[in-house]
Amino acid sequence: MIKLPRSLEQLINEFAKLPGIGPKSAQRLAFYLLKKDSVDLESFAQAVGNLKVGVMFCSRCHTMSETDPCNVCTDPHRDQTLICLVEDPMDAIAIDKTGQFKGVFHILGGVLNPMDGIGPEKLNIESLRKRITDQNVSELIIATNPSLEGETTAMHLAKQFQSLGIKITRIARGLPMGGDLEYADEITLSRAMEGRREY
Amino acid sequence: MIKLPRSLEQLINEFAKLPGIGPKSAQRLAFYLLKKDSVDLESFAQAVGNLKVGVMFCSRCHTMSETDPCNVCTDPHRDQTLICLVEDPMDAIAIDKTGQFKGVFHILGGVLNPMDGIGPEKLNIESLRKRITDQNVSELIIATNPSLEGETTAMHLAKQFQSLGIKITRIARGLPMGGDLEYADEITLSRAMEGRREY
Repeated sequence: MIKLPRSLEQLINEFAKLPGIGPKSAQRLAFYLLKKDSVDLESFAQAVGNLKVGVMFCSRCHTMSETDPCNVCTDPHRDQTLICLVEDPMDAIAIDKTGQFKGVFHILGGVLNPMDGIGPEKLNIESLRKRITDQNVSELIIATNPSLEGETTAMHLAKQFQSLGIKITRIARGLPMGGDLEYADEITLSRAMEGRREY
Repeated sequence: MIKLPRSLEQLINEFAKLPGIGPKSAQRLAFYLLKKDSVDLESFAQAVGNLKVGVMFCSRCHTMSETDPCNVCTDPHRDQTLICLVEDPMDAIAIDKTGQFKGVFHILGGVLNPMDGIGPEKLNIESLRKRITDQNVSELIIATNPSLEGETTAMHLAKQFQSLGIKITRIARGLPMGGDLEYADEITLSRAMEGRREY
C-alpha cells in the first residue's frame, strides 16, 4: 500500500471533517496545498487559528460582528422598526446583498426541530419578543427557509407574536427567476398560484 | 452593508483560493468552523501549518513520502520491473487501492500541454528513461488520464520508449462499470468496440 506522509494524512482528515467535503475532495485539497509556498500555507494556518479573534456576537440581533451592537443595529440609515428574521447570519448577508432591504435583522439561530431536540428555548425567540416590545417595531418579516422546518417555525412564531399587535409577514414562495414552470414541483407551483398578485 | 469580522473574511478568502471552492462554499466553511471549539480550530491550523514537515519526494518514482526511496519503491513484495506511469500521486493511490496492481509507479508530474508551456522537459520523463534502462524493466503501463492531453502524452511517450525494447501498454478505455451504453459518448463507445476481447 502507498503510505502517505503523516502530515498530509492529518490535513486530509481535517478537510474531510468539513461539511460537503468528501474523502476524495479532502485529498485533492491537501495535495493542492502541498504544492503551495510555505508562505501561503502559513497565511492559511493563521487565518484558521485566528478565526475567533475579535469576533463577538451582537447582543441585539445575535449576528457575529467586531462590535456590540453590530454595525447594522447602530446604522441610523436603517429602519430599526423593520425586523427581518432569518435562520443564520449567512441568510442575513444574502438578503443584505440584494440592496433592497433597509431594515435590520434578527438571527434565530436555527429552526424548531423536535427530532434533533431543538425547541423554542434553544432559539433566539425571547430576545426577539423583547426587541419587538421595547423597540416599537412595526413589521416582522419571517424569512426562515421554505423547508418543512422553516415553514413550521415561521407558523409557530407568527402565532406566538400575533398578540403583540405588529404586522407579521412571510417572504414570498413561488417560482424562482429563470425557473421553468414545467419542471417546478407541485408545492412551489401551488405557492406561486396562491401568492399571485394583480398587475 | 453587513460588515463581517475581519478574521472571518480572511478565512473566507483563504478557502475561496482552493480549487473547486466558490465564494458561497468558502463562506459556508468559514461559518461552520466559527461554531467549532478553539481546540478543533487549533488542530486544523496546525495540520495546515505543518503540512510540509517531514514530506519529501522519492527520487525514484517522484511521489511524496516520508522516506527516500518511498515504501513502494523498496517493497520486496512488489514487482520492481513493472512500472505504471501516472500523472500525479493521487492517480497512483487510486490504482493502488484496487489491490490488483503489484508493480511500482512513476509519477509523470502532469501531461504535455504546449498551450500552458508544459513540454517534455518539465515532466519526469528522463528519470523514467533512466529507470527503464537501469532497472531491467519488463513492462511500462501508461496510465495517464483518457483526456485529450493524457492521450497525446501517452502516444508521445510510447513512441519515445519504443526503441528501449520493453513492452509498453496503455490502460483500457471503454464503458465504465454500471455505465449505460445508450448514454455513452461516441469516443468511449468507439474505444470499447476497438478494445473488445474474446471470451
